[in-house]
This record gives sequence, C-alpha cells and structure tokens, in this order.
Amino acid sequence: MGPGSKFLSAACLLFALAAHAAEPSGFGPLRGTGDLGIAVERASGSLQWLDTSKKTSLGRIEGLGDLSHASAVFSRDARYAFVFGRDGGLSKIDVLTGKIVKRVIQSGNAIGGAISQDGRFIAAANYTPGGVKIFSTETLELVADIPAVSQTTGGKPSKVVGIEDAPGNRFVFSLFDAGEIWLADLSENPAQPRITRYANIGREPYDALVTQDGRWYVAGLFGENGLAVLDLWNPEAGVKRVLGDYGRGEEKLPVYKMPHLETWAVAGNLAFIPGVGRHEVVVVDISSWQQVGTIAVAGQPVFVMAEPTGRRLWVNFAFPDYDTVQVIDVPSRQIVQTLKPGKAVLHMEFTPRGEQVWVSVRDANRIDIYDTQSFAKVGEIAAQEPSGIFFTARAHRLGL
Amino acid sequence: MGPGSKFLSAACLLFALAAHAAEPSGFGPLRGTGDLGIAVERASGSLQWLDTSKKTSLGRIEGLGDLSHASAVFSRDARYAFVFGRDGGLSKIDVLTGKIVKRVIQSGNAIGGAISQDGRFIAAANYTPGGVKIFSTETLELVADIPAVSQTTGGKPSKVVGIEDAPGNRFVFSLFDAGEIWLADLSENPAQPRITRYANIGREPYDALVTQDGRWYVAGLFGENGLAVLDLWNPEAGVKRVLGDYGRGEEKLPVYKMPHLETWAVAGNLAFIPGVGRHEVVVVDISSWQQVGTIAVAGQPVFVMAEPTGRRLWVNFAFPDYDTVQVIDVPSRQIVQTLKPGKAVLHMEFTPRGEQVWVSVRDANRIDIYDTQSFAKVGEIAAQEPSGIFFTARAHRLGL
Repeated sequence: MGPGSKFLSAACLLFALAAHAAEPSGFGPLRGTGDLGIAVERASGSLQWLDTSKKTSLGRIEGLGDLSHASAVFSRDARYAFVFGRDGGLSKIDVLTGKIVKRVIQSGNAIGGAISQDGRFIAAANYTPGGVKIFSTETLELVADIPAVSQTTGGKPSKVVGIEDAPGNRFVFSLFDAGEIWLADLSENPAQPRITRYANIGREPYDALVTQDGRWYVAGLFGENGLAVLDLWNPEAGVKRVLGDYGRGEEKLPVYKMPHLETWAVAGNLAFIPGVGRHEVVVVDISSWQQVGTIAVAGQPVFVMAEPTGRRLWVNFAFPDYDTVQVIDVPSRQIVQTLKPGKAVLHMEFTPRGEQVWVSVRDANRIDIYDTQSFAKVGEIAAQEPSGIFFTARAHRLGL
Repeated sequence: MGPGSKFLSAACLLFALAAHAAEPSGFGPLRGTGDLGIAVERASGSLQWLDTSKKTSLGRIEGLGDLSHASAVFSRDARYAFVFGRDGGLSKIDVLTGKIVKRVIQSGNAIGGAISQDGRFIAAANYTPGGVKIFSTETLELVADIPAVSQTTGGKPSKVVGIEDAPGNRFVFSLFDAGEIWLADLSENPAQPRITRYANIGREPYDALVTQDGRWYVAGLFGENGLAVLDLWNPEAGVKRVLGDYGRGEEKLPVYKMPHLETWAVAGNLAFIPGVGRHEVVVVDISSWQQVGTIAVAGQPVFVMAEPTGRRLWVNFAFPDYDTVQVIDVPSRQIVQTLKPGKAVLHMEFTPRGEQVWVSVRDANRIDIYDTQSFAKVGEIAAQEPSGIFFTARAHRLGL
C-alpha cells in the first residue's frame, strides 16, 4: 500500500468510527463471532475478552461494577453478551469490538438472568428489592416489572433466584422468601407477562436449572431436603417434590458452598448432580426421579459438568479441595483423572464441540486450557482472579 | 451525512474491498454470525444467504456448480460455510460477505462431508473415484487422501457414504461397495490418519449418522435389513447389527426415497427414526437397541427431526406425500398438526433455540417459516427450487 492508501486508511478509520456512532452495527475488521467469549474478573469489575480458536485474550473490558457471582447470556446473533452484576448492573457488551454498548443499574442487588427463546428479552432476577425485571435486548429499556409479591411474604417482594428461559418465550424463577416457583409467559404480551404461581414448593429455593431439552425446571432448597421439580411439558401437573434425601440431611453437615445447579450433566435418562455437603456426585434417573447411585469424589462438588459429548463429567470442589478438578467416565462411573490446577478453581467452560475445557484458577490469576482427550494443558491466559467463563455458543442453547 | 461523507463512504468501500483482497479477514460492516445461514438452490447451483433474526434473504450466492444432494458444515468461528456439491466441488463461503472465498473440484462425484471437532479439517466423501479426502479448512489444501480400497472390492476404491465427525478429531464413514465402516483418527498425524476397519457390517450401507452426543455411529443398509451400529465410546467392541426387521423387509416394499439418517430425533433414551417404505416412524430404545413402538404417519418419512427441545418431531415425506409435514408430540406419540406447505418439502431446519422452523418447498420456489409453538406461518422467502437449509449454529454441534 502506498502513502495515499495510508491516508485513506486513516480517513476510513475516522469515517468508520463516525459511522459506528451513527448506527449501532458499525464498521470494522470482519470476523465470525462463534469462537468468542468472556471471563469474569470479579475483583476488578472487568472481563477478559476471549478467542477460543487462537486460545488467547483479545483484551480487557473494564467498568462493569461489582461482578461477584456475575453471569452472562448472549444475543441470538452471538454478537452481544449481557452481563448481570451483583450490584444490579446489567451491561450489554459487543464481543466484536470489546466495548460496553450500554449499561443500566436495574436494581440494588441481583443474582443472574436469562434471555428469551426468541432473543428479544432479557430477564434479571433481583435480591434487592426482589422481583424480576424484563428488558429489551435491543435497547435495555424496561419492558415489564414483576415485583414477585406473594401472600406468603405478606406483600413484601421476594428475593428471586434460579431464573431460566423456557420454550415458548417463558421465564421460570423461584422466590426464595416465599417458597414459590413462578412461570412468566411473554408470548402474548411481553409488557404484561401472564404469570402462573406454584406455592409451597419447599423452603428457601436457592438456585435452579432447566435441563438442556427445556423440559425440567429443578430448584434446589436451602431450607430443607429434596428438590422441587416442574415439568414444563406439562405445567398443569404442578410442582413435585423429589429426592427427599437430597440436601444437607438431618445432621446438617457443614456445607462450605452450596453447589451450583445451573448446568446439570445429563446422559440419556441419567443426571449427575453435586451432593450437598457430601464428597459425592449423586446419580439420578430423570424418568423416575429416583436416586440410582453415587460416585465418591475428592471433596464437596460445586459444578458437575458434562462434556458436550456426555462421555465424561468434570467436577470442581468447595474449600478446602478447591485446587482440584476430577474427571469421571460416565459409562463406568470411575474417576479417570485428577488435576490440580491450583487454588480456587471457580468455573469451567467447554468449547462448543468439547475438544477443550477452560478452567478459572482464581488465586493463580490464570485461565488454564486443557485438551479433554489427553488431559494435557494446552494453553493459559493471565486474568485477574477469574471466575465465570462464558462462550458465545451459549446463544444457541436453552436454559442457560 | 453530507455529500462529502458520501464520497468518503464510496472511497472507503473501495478501500475496504482492496483491503479485503489483501487480507482474508477483511473490513466491512460489523455483525454477529450466530443468526446466519444458507439454503441450497440446487437447480441453479446457487445459495440463498439467510438472516434468521430478520427472517430475510441477504442475497444470492452464485457459481457453486451441481448442488443436487448438497450439504454444508460450518467453521468453528461460524463465519465460513463449506458446501459439498454433487460434482465434487468443495466451496468455502464467507457468510459475513456472501462471497465464495475458495472453490476446488476435489473429485468427480461427491456425497457430503464433515468438519473435525477442532475445526481444522474438512473431510469429503466421494463416489467417483470413491474414498475420502481431507482438506485444511484454512486453505482447502489437501492434507490426506484415503482411497478406501478394501480387499472385499478387489483393490477398487469404494464409494464412501455417511461421513461424520466424531470426538477426538476422528471421522467415521461407510464403504458402500465393500460393506465396511472405517474410523480415521487425525489426532496424532492428520496427514496420515490412523485407520480402523470394520468389515462385514452389512450389504450396501447408504447413509449414516452420529447421535448428537457423539456416541453412536449408525449406518442404514440398502442391500439388506437392519442397521449397523458402532459405539464410539467403545470402538474395540466392533460393529453390531441391530433392528433386524428394520428396512425394506422381505416383501421389498416400493421405496420412493430412502430416508435420510443424518439427524435422528433423540429424546432421553428414545430415538425416532423414519420407517423404510412404510408409513410409520419407528421408536427405538437406544440403551437396548430394541424397537419399542411405531407411530403411523401420512406417508413414507424422509426426515424425522426433533425440535431442539425434543418435545416435538417434525416429519416430511417421500412422493406422493411430499407436500405434507406432520408434527408429533413426543410424550403422547400423537400427531398434533398436519401442515401442507406445498409440493416437494425437501428439508427443514430449526432456529438454534427452536422458536422457528424453516421449510424448503421446492416446487413453490419458497422457504416457509413457521412458529413452532403456534404452527403459524410467520414468514416466507423466495428461493429457486430450495433444498437443504443450514444455519451457522451447526458450527457448534457434533455429528453433522
């Protein structure tokens, strides 16, 4: 290129920036968005911006507030991440440019969110003042407010946990204080969601999941044993209590960290779930909701995550075993590998087709990348106290 | 914008085109690639370039040769489609720009292909001269040639069908003439794949699939009844023959079109597969490989496809019922909807989270878009005799 083209290049860059300001789609270097992601740096309120093909960071995205327990969902075009911060901040991040497109403080204290099946709406679950708020993914403008006020709590809004998307543009969530599960249907009028309430589902639901097929909404209970299950294929049947022995038990074992329920490992009809306060993974037959076995592991499991193939489970643990990851072979239910990435393995994320797993090692300020076949470490990325890792392929999955 | 900016805009476009020629990543209007796709226009050797968010065509991509029975896979960044033409053409399409990046004629007659788990390699299955060729996804340069010469066929290369990717950077495929299944492992040396051969798997395998968990490779047989099954979690156990009654049967029913096996509907342990020459969907328990039921339908099924939620199956049919689509409710196994989109429904593709299904109606020169909840038609796109529809989210799935 000659000096003329250099000048033109600079002019075009300016023009592109101006065009970017004028229209949100922007103009810039082209790339696909299928191999991008973010990792939460919770202490510094920032994100690492990740490229899974090159196994590298593309930079740091700053200014996201309190990111303790932060999570993210992605737009249906896999271009934007919506990050839910603990301080009620909801940030829309452009993973093509690494910029914050918009940021709103939507509550005083929040605990995650979800995106509707059609990609038009974001729902945020709030602790303070409680309730759920629905926003447009396009503008982050408020579309609907669901205070989650129940008779059980005498007209006070309830803390909301375990919010998940469900087929048919519905959101499902649990009311911690009220012990209820609510199903909000946005398919007719998003501004006035149709609410179905399920009361007396158990004391203090603290987290929940939807199975990957969008069928089962499962809430874990902090206040008693057992799980609350809603069959979204047949919601008229109501919420059932299952696995009455699952939980902290009569002895109230010391529980260092309540396990996460966002992603259950499901292979065929079997689900593999973290035991509460016990050094075991619990095997459940989903067709009958009966416990059919346990697998002894190195500590109290936090996440039990299946490789995309379902062949193996990767398990991390609560203190004091939080330096360890174990890998379980599903058919034999044997531990086939024990890794020691370092202190405070907080999260794991598989590449979409499962050839790698990315592991946050908080106190080492690293994200480690492992080959899932050989267990070899194939890369690492510097990150400030990383926690949750989220890749754009989540855009295409239900119940995340 | 003033006229000056218009001039600058035109100059920038020229510059961007020049930059595009210079570096493959290019420069242009930014957008995510998670909601893009292509539809094959087989008679005209072209593609419709699709946007599933706007429910629209972004244009036509021409010059792809003979696209009868064409199929496509996507790069791991969801930017490039690799289209396998019947004439042996392998085309790399940039779905961000709608351009053909590269095109090679890799054989005289081909029948589909696959992409490796890590996204580095494309495999094409060939009829003439037979065998499999492996290419770099980056450059489309030949990496390895597997002639598929077997003793059974006396040293002649075999036609290869049913090529699928499997975990661990492996490809699995079937030799039509030889009646064999081969497993090619590229994980150690991609230029010299390690081949495992399974002989006597049945006469004339004509198509195959890998279940979405990457576990089961299943080949349909044209020359006899039954299916050949390889457990990729335990390939040492060899190929087993299952479902001995499945197929054209003793009476050799008139079969208007052998059903496609690329995508089986799997819900829990149940698979729903097209009956051969019969007006039924066959229900198989994958844990035992036993037939456990049938569902009567309007004609000879071609594709039996599960919504991403697994809740419903959408079925299209061979001549003379090829104007019809039926929808089956999985829990009750009842037909809940019969649609008549028009003559020659050739393919269906769900949006990744299942809110819509896009249907090719060949003789009507249309792609119809249906809402999967209400069955309402929510859009249509003009297309010249459309057949296969492929969305970029396939980039993130195994066994496609």
